[in-house]
Amino acid sequence: MLSIDINCDIGEGYGAYRIGADEELMGLITSANIACGFHAGDPGIMRASVLSAMKHNVAIGAHPGLPDREGFGRREMAIAPKEAYDMIVYQLGALRAFAESEGGFLSHVKPHGALYNMAAMEDALAEAIAEAVYKVDGSLLLFGLSGSALIRAGEKLGLRTANEVFADRSYESDGSLTPRNIEGAVLASAETAARQAVMMVKEGKVATRQGGVIALKADTICVHGDTPGAAGHVLALRELLKREGISFRAVTASSESV
Amino acid sequence: MLSIDINCDIGEGYGAYRIGADEELMGLITSANIACGFHAGDPGIMRASVLSAMKHNVAIGAHPGLPDREGFGRREMAIAPKEAYDMIVYQLGALRAFAESEGGFLSHVKPHGALYNMAAMEDALAEAIAEAVYKVDGSLLLFGLSGSALIRAGEKLGLRTANEVFADRSYESDGSLTPRNIEGAVLASAETAARQAVMMVKEGKVATRQGGVIALKADTICVHGDTPGAAGHVLALRELLKREGISFRAVTASSESV
Amino acid sequence: MLSIDINCDIGEGYGAYRIGADEELMGLITSANIACGFHAGDPGIMRASVLSAMKHNVAIGAHPGLPDREGFGRREMAIAPKEAYDMIVYQLGALRAFAESEGGFLSHVKPHGALYNMAAMEDALAEAIAEAVYKVDGSLLLFGLSGSALIRAGEKLGLRTANEVFADRSYESDGSLTPRNIEGAVLASAETAARQAVMMVKEGKVATRQGGVIALKADTICVHGDTPGAAGHVLALRELLKREGISFRAVTASSESV
Amino acid sequence: MLSIDINCDIGEGYGAYRIGADEELMGLITSANIACGFHAGDPGIMRASVLSAMKHNVAIGAHPGLPDREGFGRREMAIAPKEAYDMIVYQLGALRAFAESEGGFLSHVKPHGALYNMAAMEDALAEAIAEAVYKVDGSLLLFGLSGSALIRAGEKLGLRTANEVFADRSYESDGSLTPRNIEGAVLASAETAARQAVMMVKEGKVATRQGGVIALKADTICVHGDTPGAAGHVLALRELLKREGISFRAVTASSESV
Repeated sequence: MLSIDINCDIGEGYGAYRIGADEELMGLITSANIACGFHAGDPGIMRASVLSAMKHNVAIGAHPGLPDREGFGRREMAIAPKEAYDMIVYQLGALRAFAESEGGFLSHVKPHGALYNMAAMEDALAEAIAEAVYKVDGSLLLFGLSGSALIRAGEKLGLRTANEVFADRSYESDGSLTPRNIEGAVLASAETAARQAVMMVKEGKVATRQGGVIALKADTICVHGDTPGAAGHVLALRELLKREGISFRAVTASSESV
Repeated sequence: MLSIDINCDIGEGYGAYRIGADEELMGLITSANIACGFHAGDPGIMRASVLSAMKHNVAIGAHPGLPDREGFGRREMAIAPKEAYDMIVYQLGALRAFAESEGGFLSHVKPHGALYNMAAMEDALAEAIAEAVYKVDGSLLLFGLSGSALIRAGEKLGLRTANEVFADRSYESDGSLTPRNIEGAVLASAETAARQAVMMVKEGKVATRQGGVIALKADTICVHGDTPGAAGHVLALRELLKREGISFRAVTASSESV
Repeated sequence: MLSIDINCDIGEGYGAYRIGADEELMGLITSANIACGFHAGDPGIMRASVLSAMKHNVAIGAHPGLPDREGFGRREMAIAPKEAYDMIVYQLGALRAFAESEGGFLSHVKPHGALYNMAAMEDALAEAIAEAVYKVDGSLLLFGLSGSALIRAGEKLGLRTANEVFADRSYESDGSLTPRNIEGAVLASAETAARQAVMMVKEGKVATRQGGVIALKADTICVHGDTPGAAGHVLALRELLKREGISFRAVTASSESV
Repeated sequence: MLSIDINCDIGEGYGAYRIGADEELMGLITSANIACGFHAGDPGIMRASVLSAMKHNVAIGAHPGLPDREGFGRREMAIAPKEAYDMIVYQLGALRAFAESEGGFLSHVKPHGALYNMAAMEDALAEAIAEAVYKVDGSLLLFGLSGSALIRAGEKLGLRTANEVFADRSYESDGSLTPRNIEGAVLASAETAARQAVMMVKEGKVATRQGGVIALKADTICVHGDTPGAAGHVLALRELLKREGISFRAVTASSESV
């Protein structure tokens, strides 16, 4: 039976601040990418997020970001590859300590925001990130944009990788996401998004903004928890996928899926 | 043969800033307490400090502090025990990741500055810190002021502990350090300091400001790297201890010494 | 006609985070205490808050806090009076620049959270804060807990001061607020709170937890924007005060009221 | 008599950290660019730096930077022009409060590091920065790389500007500085640097790496305080300029020089 992983960014509050519908989403996803205290998150929230993931039997992942809390890690920064390496080791170690001290374990890593985007395009940065993951724990699963430099860097090192796809984003003919400042970058209807997800999972294909169809690997689908009605959208997506015979399972649960 | 551990705070720079004569000191100590990015330190400095400790065969310790970089972790903050717990897990995990990814291992934990002082006095805080250490790795060695609440909290959990003494600080009759705002709190002469160290190590005793002599356990001596001529002072201390037949060894190297 | 100032903390979001019902509250208050980027707030939010206050004809105040964003400025820190002085000058200057560059002006200062509480009790700290306000602009109005060390420190320097009272908090017989960990510290009913407000404003008196009645000066009432239904509570308070013949006016609008 | 301004970045320490030979340099320069707490500096250091500048009769300038203390403001960040505007208003206001509360005044603004470099090239960013300076105080003097987008943006708004030149850096034929990763970017000899300075000040020209000579305006020369022997280099530069009949005066001291 065909299965797919559904991942979501979790634990992106900070101190007195909260963002996202973490508790609702936890029941609907299979992988949680937990913020590690750089772009968002703090030690208390990290522990709570780890415990929540364990309670819901959701895979615990690290979601390391740039050291830019004010910009929520969304502003590109000209960091050196070695700086990226160091900030990944640091954040992975911190989250892993919460997972292990609670009897859980770290299963995957997905860079956040601008770091994710830069790592999709820049080989040197992607390789530094992959190396950090590898040196912290070579059995960790590396999430990256499907077909990106980060996925290639992970494979080069022998890391297991998960090609990530987006249900609600438009694709370009080169496999990149349509930039958000271009009209139609975000699919307006939940229906269209769900149908794109089914096509990606079942056929390994996606229609592009330019009018063609390209092949892409879909190991995990990203859903967002910080938009109004987020849980409802995820529920709708799950329903359609289920009707198409697709089940939900963390990538880490099966080595065949990578 | 009698031996003692000599520990020093290491890696307390930040970004473009440097503090302390780390490189010189590394050759003279047996345990390095490496800052973990809260009161001082950053990911790049943590990695470099770990590598330097390994090169000099110095035990790698975590030196977690309060989240107050501007105050260098020296200003007391009214944190809840659970907040202390969480910030210890976080910082230990981060440093451990650097140690292990470079082929080394974390051997001890010594809280920094105001956190160290508060943990010497407040049982609830001390117990939260000890529990964090225990849950991250029950084989870690916990450093605390000799006879303090932190040492008691560690022992209660079954953690190995190291009673820390200060060669250059005056003691009160209750075993606490003379507060720095009282005259004579810091021993003026290196000679006097070295003699105090010998007495603490060989006889398990120290003279107090009040004129008496009290018993205290001396597993590790703290030396400072951020004062002018720091390396010279440590060298002088080592010479005197050596003449008294005392050798230098990290506490972690032998379970008998704890 | 009797009038009272209603003040509220405003602009306490940070980056992507939002807290409080700022927009709703702005229409119901006469003084806005705008966070200055230490415990909360950031440059963009400060500008937006200044503009919103000007639009609603609300007095612009600085709401400086401790440098502890993770703790939202609510954890006491052992800062030196000179450190308090410096952080007040810094934050006042930053907010004043937004006010003046938009054609407005800074009218008052109210320390936040733990800094407010410490300044109510500790003379040296209170005097440092008052001096900072005085040296930045001697015509600024200083808000402090009614009868507190901060009010005394302001008066000593010749600053105009505003004695602040709390409608929904229980008072002790010494004029301090009942600590939150004591039952009944927060008045459960909006009705009771409103009646306490009327008594404070009209009679200059408040009933204490100990059963007596004490005199207190009420120049400004604090309302909170970060609790569920905040706007509704403020509206109810305003209605009752209005029925008692009390109007609403920023303290700064009239020198007689101080 | 020909005169030139000599400016230096000042107050770039942080908390317990110090960088640069501020005290020595203060006696040799005419304009101090004081860090404002984002890339470096803190409230206490800002006050001390203001007082030192006043004591040495040096013009007080703001040196605002990117919110990246760990990278010392040297890593480019993809900030929006409005974000740049806001962070400039904030930092200018904070420093101005220290200057004015001590009886001094703010006279100029020079962006730091990556913000300076980006503002030399990107019109939208340069205009946002110039607008922030203008709205805080239209009489402030804006420092920018000679002939850069920032100088143009300032002039467009009617701000007084100071074209900055570098004695010890090689120039490209388009007037930009030779990037540091190209050999010869930094002039090796103090002698060569001093001669380049004389040519820039007296003739308004500089030799380029490509072998030509280009015109450039020299209102102020930047010297660095954070290199070994910094004070000695500045002294040597001053001697040569003096021998050539050039005196030293802050740009702000005379409106003709701009």
